[in-house]
Amino acid sequence: MIYRTCALLASLLSATAAMAAMAGDATRPPGPHVPETPQPRQVILIIGDGMDEQQITIARNYLGGAAGQLLLDRMPLRSAVQILTTEDEVDGKPVYVADSANTASTMATGVITSIGRISTSAGSDQDLTTIAELAEAAGLRTGIVTTASVTDATPAAFAAHISFRLCENAASMEEVRTHDIVLGECRADLKAAGGKGSIAEQLAASRVDVILGGGGKHFTPVAEGETVSTLDLALRNGFAVVTSAGELAQAATDKKLLGLFAPGTLPVRLQGEDGREAETPERSWLNHLHPYLGSVTLPPPMRCEPNPAFSGVPTLRQMTDAALQRLANDRGFFLMIESASIDKQSHERKPCGSIGELEQLEEALDSALQFARTHPHTLIMVTADHSQAAQLIPYESLFAGFPIPVFTPGKLARVITPEGGHMAINYATNNFIMEEHTGAAVPLFSNSEGVGRIPPFLQQSQIFDITRDYLGI
Amino acid sequence: MIYRTCALLASLLSATAAMAAMAGDATRPPGPHVPETPQPRQVILIIGDGMDEQQITIARNYLGGAAGQLLLDRMPLRSAVQILTTEDEVDGKPVYVADSANTASTMATGVITSIGRISTSAGSDQDLTTIAELAEAAGLRTGIVTTASVTDATPAAFAAHISFRLCENAASMEEVRTHDIVLGECRADLKAAGGKGSIAEQLAASRVDVILGGGGKHFTPVAEGETVSTLDLALRNGFAVVTSAGELAQAATDKKLLGLFAPGTLPVRLQGEDGREAETPERSWLNHLHPYLGSVTLPPPMRCEPNPAFSGVPTLRQMTDAALQRLANDRGFFLMIESASIDKQSHERKPCGSIGELEQLEEALDSALQFARTHPHTLIMVTADHSQAAQLIPYESLFAGFPIPVFTPGKLARVITPEGGHMAINYATNNFIMEEHTGAAVPLFSNSEGVGRIPPFLQQSQIFDITRDYLGI
Repeated sequence: MIYRTCALLASLLSATAAMAAMAGDATRPPGPHVPETPQPRQVILIIGDGMDEQQITIARNYLGGAAGQLLLDRMPLRSAVQILTTEDEVDGKPVYVADSANTASTMATGVITSIGRISTSAGSDQDLTTIAELAEAAGLRTGIVTTASVTDATPAAFAAHISFRLCENAASMEEVRTHDIVLGECRADLKAAGGKGSIAEQLAASRVDVILGGGGKHFTPVAEGETVSTLDLALRNGFAVVTSAGELAQAATDKKLLGLFAPGTLPVRLQGEDGREAETPERSWLNHLHPYLGSVTLPPPMRCEPNPAFSGVPTLRQMTDAALQRLANDRGFFLMIESASIDKQSHERKPCGSIGELEQLEEALDSALQFARTHPHTLIMVTADHSQAAQLIPYESLFAGFPIPVFTPGKLARVITPEGGHMAINYATNNFIMEEHTGAAVPLFSNSEGVGRIPPFLQQSQIFDITRDYLGI
Repeated sequence: MIYRTCALLASLLSATAAMAAMAGDATRPPGPHVPETPQPRQVILIIGDGMDEQQITIARNYLGGAAGQLLLDRMPLRSAVQILTTEDEVDGKPVYVADSANTASTMATGVITSIGRISTSAGSDQDLTTIAELAEAAGLRTGIVTTASVTDATPAAFAAHISFRLCENAASMEEVRTHDIVLGECRADLKAAGGKGSIAEQLAASRVDVILGGGGKHFTPVAEGETVSTLDLALRNGFAVVTSAGELAQAATDKKLLGLFAPGTLPVRLQGEDGREAETPERSWLNHLHPYLGSVTLPPPMRCEPNPAFSGVPTLRQMTDAALQRLANDRGFFLMIESASIDKQSHERKPCGSIGELEQLEEALDSALQFARTHPHTLIMVTADHSQAAQLIPYESLFAGFPIPVFTPGKLARVITPEGGHMAINYATNNFIMEEHTGAAVPLFSNSEGVGRIPPFLQQSQIFDITRDYLGI
C-alpha cells in the first residue's frame, strides 16, 4: 500500500514537473534568490529608447512583415511597465510624460525622479545608488553599451549622478548652450563645489568594466582641477581606449575597456531613400483658403536604404559580444545595453532610422540569448524607457470616401515594405524641429528566467528590484 | 527506505504544487480541453474598441492616478495581439491599419479579412462561420452586449454576414449615404439576391439569446419582403424587447432578449467641462507669418464632468449582469461585451468620453470576474480591436527652454486629473472631423483560465481558436 501510494505520488510529481516544464519556469517562486552553488548570476538589461508598441509594430511590419514575428515576440514573457515621473520637488505632483534621464534613473536606482536628472533625487538633489554601483560593491562586473554617446542620459544614469543630463563634459558644467539658448547648468555638481563633476569625468573615474558607444567629443575637454583631458583620466584609471570596430576586435580582454566610436551618437543603420524623412503634405493654394477645398500632395512613397555612415562603426551586436566576452566571470555581472536611436530618429521624424535601430536591438538580444544558453543563470530583460511620437496611420484614410483632402496636420513618411505593402507613419506631437515623447506604458520582455519573477504589470522602479534580487546583492 | 523516498516525493510534490499555485494556473497544459465532467464552460470576450496602451494609460492616470492600477492591470495574464488586415482581394497584400469591422470579424471567425467587412471573406465575399454560430450549434447560449448600436461593426461581426458594415438596416441596402456622399451599398446581400439582408434583419432573425445596446433606429424600417418592421421580425422570432434600464431590470428571464436603449450609440458617462473637446491651439497673427514667431494660446485646462445624457440608459455593468443572468446554464455560453466609445470618443477628440467608457469596461470586467468566482470554468479575455489616435504628450514641451511657441499641429485637450496633475492629450492623425485609427499591436488580458492557454504574443485570429478550444466546440 505504501508502495502504491508512493508510486502514485511519484507519478503525480512527474506529471506536475512535466506541466511545469511546459509552462516554462513559471513554477519558480518569485523573490530574492541566493544561489545554492557558487554559480555566477548575471542580468542583461536591454533598453530600446522610445520603443513603444507603435515603434515595434512599424519595425515588425518592415523587418518581418505584417504577419511576421520579431525575436522580441518569441520571448516567453511580455509585461507592461508603468512609467512614473515627478515634478522637481520633494513629494511633487506626478508628471505624465517622462524623459530618458528620469526613466533610466528609475531603472538604475529604483527611485522615481524628475525630468533631466541623472540618478539624483527630485527636489533634494541627493545621489541615488545605482544597480551598477551595488554590483561593483558586491564584486560583480559591470558594463554599459549604447548606440548613443556613453554620456547620454540612459547610459549615464547607471554610472553617474548629476542634476542635469546635458552636463555631459567638463566644459558644459557652468552653462549648457544650444542654438545660443541657455538650457541649464550644473555648478553645484562641480568637484570644487563638492560634486562629482561632469558625466564624462564620472565615467572616466568609474569602476565600470566595459563602456562602449559614442561620445568621444565629451572626453576631450580638460578635466576639472587637472591639466589633462578627461580621456587621459580614463587611461590613468586603467581603461584601455578604442575608437573603431577594428580596435575593438583587437583590444586586450584583461583591462577595463572604454570604446568611443564617434564624436556623438553612432550613425544608424538605415535611412530613408536619398536621406528623406517624414515631410509636410503640400497643400494647393485653394486648400490654404479652406481645408476642405483644393488638393493636397502627400510625400511620395519611399524605401529604406543603408546609411553609408554606418559602415565602420561597430554594430550593437559587436559591442554586445565584446562586452559579454569581458564580463563573463565566476562572480556574475550586470550589463545595460541601449539601442538609443529608436527614440532619436523618431524625434527627427526618420522612421527608417528607428527601424534599423530596432533591428540592431534584435541582434543584440540574439547575442544575449546565445550567451544565456551557455550561462544558465542569466536574466535578460528588454524594455523601453518611455513611448515616442511616431504613429502608424492608415495609408488610405478611413474617410477617403469623402470628396475632400484628408491628411495629417503633422509630418508624414510613406514607407514601402519589403513585402510590398505601404506604411504611413505620422509625426505630429509638435511643430518644432524635434518631436515629443509620449506617455503610454511600455512593454517589457524577458527570457525564461523572468517567468514567475516579473508580474504582467509593474512599475518601472521594480526593474531595479528584480535585478537586485536576481543578482542577490 | 521506501517510506523515506516516498516522504521525500510527497514533500517535493507538495512544494511543486505550492509553487504551481503561486504561479496561477500556469501548469495547466495548453490546447483544446474537453471537460471530464459535464460542467458548463463559458467564454466572456470583452472588447475595448480602440483601447490601446495610450488610451489605457490616459484612463489609468485619471481614474487611478499615475501610480494607480486599473482592474485590467491586476489581471494575471497580459499579452500583445498582432492585428492583421488584407486588401479586398483573395491573397491580397497586407494593410497595416485596421477598422473595427475586419478586426471583429477576425476575432469572431478566425479569418483575416478586409476593411468594412462583417464576417465575410476578402475578395470572394463568402460568409464565415462565427464563434457564436458554432456555440449555438453546440447547444450553448450566446450573448452580445455593446455601448454602440447592436448593428455596429463589432457586435455585428459575431452574428451577421455582410459585405459592408454600414448596411445596418433594411433601408440602407441599396445605398449608404452620409452628408450627401454615397459610401457604399450591399445589393448583393439583399434577400432577393440570395443574401441575408441588412445587419438589423440578421440580428432579428438570429439565434442569439441576449442582444443589448443601442441602435433602435435600425429596427424601425420595414424588413425586406415583409410588411412589418425589423423589430416586429425580432418579436416574431421570440425576442422580448426592452428600451430602458427599468424595463431591462423587469424583463422576463425565460425569453430571448433584445435591448435597444438609444436610437444609435449609447450616451457616454463623462464629457469635458461644459462639453468641451480637444481644440486647436490659437496662434497669434505673427505666428501665422512664421511658426517660430509670435505666441500661441493653448486650450485652457479642463476637468471631466458627468454627461447628463448618460442617466437613464443602462450602464455596461447593468447590461453585463443582465446578460450573465440569462446566459448561465448547464451547457455554457459565449458572451461578447463591447465598450465601444473608447474609439468613438477618440474619433471625436473627446478624452473624457473615452476615459468614462474605459471605466465602464472596468465595471463590466468586475462583473465578469465576480461571475467567474462562482462559475469556475469561465475564461475571460479583454482586448482591443485596433489602436487609436489619442496620444498623451508632455504638458510642458521637452523644448520649452527654446524661446519659440512649441505646440501640436493637431488638436489638444488639457485635462486636470483628480490627483491634481495635468495631462495633455493630442489628436493629430488628420485634419478631418474625425480622427483615424492607428496600427500598433494591442494588449490582451485574461483571468487565470487564460494562463498557459494564451501565449505572450498572438495573432488576432487566435482569439477565435482559443475560444473554440476552451468551449470544446
